[in-house]
Amino acid sequence: MALDRLKSVAQHVTGTLPPPHPFDPLSNAEIEAAVQIIRQQYGQLHYNAITLKEPLKKEMLRWLENPSIPRPVRIADVVVVAPGGKVIEGWVDLKAGKVTKWLSLEGVQPLITMEDLQAVEHVCRKDPKVIEQCAISGIPAEDMHKVYCDPWTIGYDHRFGSNVRLQQALMYYRPHMDDSQYSFPLDFCPIFDAAKQEIIHIDIPEIRRPVNKAKPNNYHVDAIEKEGGYRTDIKPINITQPEGVSFKVEGRVIDWQNWKVHVGFNYKEGIVLNNITYNDKGTERPIFYRLSLAEMVVPYGNPEHPHQRKHAFDLGEYGGGYMTNSLSLGCDCKGAIHYMDAAFVNKAGDSTTIKNAICIHEEDAGILFKHTDFRDDSVVVTRGRKLIISHIFTAANYEYCVYWIFHQDGTVQLEIKLTGILNTYAMNPGEDTKGWGTEVYPGVNAHNHQHLFCLRIDPNIDGPNNTVFQVDATQGAGEVGSKENPFGNAFYAKRTKYSTVKEATSDYNGATSRTWDMCNTNKLNPHSHKPVSYKLVSREVPGLLPKEGSLVWKRAGFARHAVHVTKYDDEQLYPAGRHVPQTSGEPSRGIPEWIADGEASIDNTDVVLWHTFGLTHFPAPEDFPIMPAEPMTLLLRPRNFFVRNPALDVPPSYCSTPSQIASKSMVTNAADKMSKLVIAPGEADCCKK
Amino acid sequence: MALDRLKSVAQHVTGTLPPPHPFDPLSNAEIEAAVQIIRQQYGQLHYNAITLKEPLKKEMLRWLENPSIPRPVRIADVVVVAPGGKVIEGWVDLKAGKVTKWLSLEGVQPLITMEDLQAVEHVCRKDPKVIEQCAISGIPAEDMHKVYCDPWTIGYDHRFGSNVRLQQALMYYRPHMDDSQYSFPLDFCPIFDAAKQEIIHIDIPEIRRPVNKAKPNNYHVDAIEKEGGYRTDIKPINITQPEGVSFKVEGRVIDWQNWKVHVGFNYKEGIVLNNITYNDKGTERPIFYRLSLAEMVVPYGNPEHPHQRKHAFDLGEYGGGYMTNSLSLGCDCKGAIHYMDAAFVNKAGDSTTIKNAICIHEEDAGILFKHTDFRDDSVVVTRGRKLIISHIFTAANYEYCVYWIFHQDGTVQLEIKLTGILNTYAMNPGEDTKGWGTEVYPGVNAHNHQHLFCLRIDPNIDGPNNTVFQVDATQGAGEVGSKENPFGNAFYAKRTKYSTVKEATSDYNGATSRTWDMCNTNKLNPHSHKPVSYKLVSREVPGLLPKEGSLVWKRAGFARHAVHVTKYDDEQLYPAGRHVPQTSGEPSRGIPEWIADGEASIDNTDVVLWHTFGLTHFPAPEDFPIMPAEPMTLLLRPRNFFVRNPALDVPPSYCSTPSQIASKSMVTNAADKMSKLVIAPGEADCCKK
Repeated sequence: MALDRLKSVAQHVTGTLPPPHPFDPLSNAEIEAAVQIIRQQYGQLHYNAITLKEPLKKEMLRWLENPSIPRPVRIADVVVVAPGGKVIEGWVDLKAGKVTKWLSLEGVQPLITMEDLQAVEHVCRKDPKVIEQCAISGIPAEDMHKVYCDPWTIGYDHRFGSNVRLQQALMYYRPHMDDSQYSFPLDFCPIFDAAKQEIIHIDIPEIRRPVNKAKPNNYHVDAIEKEGGYRTDIKPINITQPEGVSFKVEGRVIDWQNWKVHVGFNYKEGIVLNNITYNDKGTERPIFYRLSLAEMVVPYGNPEHPHQRKHAFDLGEYGGGYMTNSLSLGCDCKGAIHYMDAAFVNKAGDSTTIKNAICIHEEDAGILFKHTDFRDDSVVVTRGRKLIISHIFTAANYEYCVYWIFHQDGTVQLEIKLTGILNTYAMNPGEDTKGWGTEVYPGVNAHNHQHLFCLRIDPNIDGPNNTVFQVDATQGAGEVGSKENPFGNAFYAKRTKYSTVKEATSDYNGATSRTWDMCNTNKLNPHSHKPVSYKLVSREVPGLLPKEGSLVWKRAGFARHAVHVTKYDDEQLYPAGRHVPQTSGEPSRGIPEWIADGEASIDNTDVVLWHTFGLTHFPAPEDFPIMPAEPMTLLLRPRNFFVRNPALDVPPSYCSTPSQIASKSMVTNAADKMSKLVIAPGEADCCKK
Repeated sequence: MALDRLKSVAQHVTGTLPPPHPFDPLSNAEIEAAVQIIRQQYGQLHYNAITLKEPLKKEMLRWLENPSIPRPVRIADVVVVAPGGKVIEGWVDLKAGKVTKWLSLEGVQPLITMEDLQAVEHVCRKDPKVIEQCAISGIPAEDMHKVYCDPWTIGYDHRFGSNVRLQQALMYYRPHMDDSQYSFPLDFCPIFDAAKQEIIHIDIPEIRRPVNKAKPNNYHVDAIEKEGGYRTDIKPINITQPEGVSFKVEGRVIDWQNWKVHVGFNYKEGIVLNNITYNDKGTERPIFYRLSLAEMVVPYGNPEHPHQRKHAFDLGEYGGGYMTNSLSLGCDCKGAIHYMDAAFVNKAGDSTTIKNAICIHEEDAGILFKHTDFRDDSVVVTRGRKLIISHIFTAANYEYCVYWIFHQDGTVQLEIKLTGILNTYAMNPGEDTKGWGTEVYPGVNAHNHQHLFCLRIDPNIDGPNNTVFQVDATQGAGEVGSKENPFGNAFYAKRTKYSTVKEATSDYNGATSRTWDMCNTNKLNPHSHKPVSYKLVSREVPGLLPKEGSLVWKRAGFARHAVHVTKYDDEQLYPAGRHVPQTSGEPSRGIPEWIADGEASIDNTDVVLWHTFGLTHFPAPEDFPIMPAEPMTLLLRPRNFFVRNPALDVPPSYCSTPSQIASKSMVTNAADKMSKLVIAPGEADCCKK
């Protein structure tokens, strides 16, 4: 580590430089300092992860309330693999400069890093058994450099258990190095032992499927040019912000349109949003202590061995942060962009950086509100703006684009776009997919799958003591003609309080447009006399399709229900457990453990809401060879939180009142002057004759 | 009618000018020609509507296939109210210059026009019984100019039946003419007789609620200025298209990114999209013959009389076209805008115009697709573009912003934003809303309501003979450990063919992520061997909450189920009937009539799919005094329609291949050059130290 870096850490520690915000991810310098300290004590190790151990909430709330008290100590949370494969979790107190925890774990495997992934392909290409299988598939030994693999953690395979660190290699072939391999899946699956760095087994199907003979199906420039070239009829849309952005950046705290949010990042969840507050006419009101995508699972629906192992926990097994793209100006987002980098550790213990890991920018959001009085056409029309905090990660074949969107009306939106490439498997000509997949291209079987995300919501609705209610749109009592419902039109929002963990274990109900309110029952809205709240509005909420007792069901306990609510616990961050690879699901880790005491009270206390949402994907040829982005979204909406529309003071584009109309006096016209008619008025009139 | 206009109609008719496209709405000249012809025969009448009688589909398909044959004749479809209140439906053949149908209707009321609406308030203000009720509410007679009403059709009230043309006046007060009246609802409801132009009855509640004493709650400029003024921290986002738009306009046919669509408009549905095709590598493939919002109903959930009458059919009772806003450049949409006007008839028989009724423009659509190879970071990232055809209509208090969005990947999206103002009713201090509404402001009760839209989809998936399938994500057979599902992970898309009208009468199922495929079973995708299809993906699909047998249930038969499928019939356009005001629902008009023969075959024939979707709105103070736009959306997605992603030839922003990376050769970099970093690189580096 360079001397100046060490010095800078020391300065942070001694307070001679502005110290990091307690929520800030560890800097490169802090990561290197942690490694230095560990190395002095334990020598050479393989680093799996070094990340911020987030401050205890109790301490943190105290400091947020009064930042003049000493700030919580910076602690590095470390996972290493010691020689021989022993997994160790440790803490390094960066202020004290010492290791405060050093714990050996048995039978767990920490996540697979990018370095872990990169190794497998090279081993496969040289392995005689793999070469033999490739020959059977129709690939000669001299073409082994054309053989590729997407290495996945093995997930769980009872034949191998959890003690040996394994990956399964999903095999592909590329006729030319620029060809998309996903048109040439191979039918066998080598198992890679990370400790031995060798292939210890190959799963070979009963029915063999030689490598695809179809011609390549590519999306790169040369391929498109050869097929007739790019369309030339798209005229530019320029998005410019000549006066800069409307947000302020202080360290990692973004201040925008009454919102304040600390933007964190870690190797597992990617973006973490902390201490989200809204300045309501001078009062900074807390809304969420922490928001993140905490886990996900992608179960595939083909029942044949070994496809049951395809159910990637992309966050817990690989890390949404580790797999994050370095973003490019003018490609991933347009306009005035503020980027943040991400710092990690590599296997050797050096700090690494993903440049431009997080993108922060604004977009026009269309009409925020509008009303015209039909009597005189007096009108107000106000345009909205949104702030988008995003990152994109690549999980082997797939890409997930994650957009945390803040709106001026107090809504927080999570939008995810799914793009990238389908995971594919080989099929013979005329073979029946049996409904478990779709032939998206000759010889290419794309299996049915689900993308189930787990959103961790730590609400802080005017304080940490919150209560969750289930809300169902419900018909009123009484049949048509009854006294209480004479015309049969009565309906209401049926609110069911979740008093216990067990009551809160709930599914989605499309028929009642079910939503969930996170309330502070200690504070009522002065107008509606209802508790201040934020409502979770989520409509893409499929159930987990793998059956009760199945491997996925056991391992992805969080996905069994749309909502779980737990009492806050500093240790409960990972809904499928902290170390997910090769968990058997016996017992199920994470949420199933935390909800074991179903009677635990979650009424008017510090709670966390875990929401599983996503979609079920039955592939079609349109999704191939690269999938147009499929969007999905959910909203966290203020309900009874504000006393009125909090965006009334957003300047209108146009506003006229009845008295202005009547007296023909000046109205407010701030319409965007850059907008133009496509056809000049003269021409337009001419066309209408 | 001016002589030149008559001449221009004649020219259309004689063919010396390019004649209108058969789908084109009637021009002002055509409307005036129709009136002229009717007037000569029948004298002075009150015109309710003159609109295009759309060509018979059989004829039209013939002409679309071969535009050199004579085009379908232009026919004006006319609704008039004759002296004495008799309602007449007529057709005028504009070529022959004669009336070809003239039919008196009994016991029906055509929709309420804007002119009908405007009349009521003036009558109310002068009516002694209304003045008396205002006095009871606390408004002195000299303040009657401060009394306003939103006139609604009466809906249906058994006391008055269908023969007398009635409106109910929802009463409000404005302390000052610029005050929002919705903070001052009055508790009584006058009934207006359109023929007599007088108030024939007043519904007076048992519990009286004097006019609200709260101070006004306004959103206009003066009010916001007084409360501290507008926020000043929003920097401009400029959206410019220096080279113009990417679409071509020929008459009303828009040609954009392989899409072609004819943009029609009528007084009832507003935008009608016809003959939607996609140019698939040179072949113009039909997808939809016609798309429109055909009806909607907004039932309110308060069971007390007379609130059961509040269930507006905003399209069928008032007309989404008639209520359409004249749009303003730089307010409603930004960028390069193409507007289309709308022509109507007024009561007297003059043609009228809403300028800029339809907005057509493009927007950047973010990432269209992206994939990075984790091995070498070779990447493609391509930005999408969308075409938006929109209109906004004001239904008294509410606004509906309707966006028909075309995507490059073959998706058609319908987005609706709900904004405007809540319908409100008076409440006394401390009064219990009983759960039927929310006190959004002191003394203001906003009742629960639903917005249920009926989307009419006339599919033409590679031809008119189509079949609808229900698709449910379903677990595979066999328990965990069984031979067919050993690991319990099997799942598939269960497809249920709708062979008959009865089978097709179906509800939404959130648990199975239910979708509906419109297929051409005569044509299989060459790769997947599945029928070419478009899938309806809609997630906001609440059931109709008013009970079976209730007034709303009877009148809004279309809303009883999420999907109905009928065999195509030229006469079946209006799912709640053509003349909706004052229908009793006995019998139910529209869809319930058309599905009476449940056994009628809809297998591989020309079908129409009717989809009811929407949302249930439980108001909150955030929605007041003007509601931030609440968006909802649905998708029509190509599935097995194309052989691959149809947008591969959209030029990428950035593209590199493994061989380019390996050889360090030039890559394709077309990143948007207008995008900028918020903080200059030098500063950014400095901040990171």
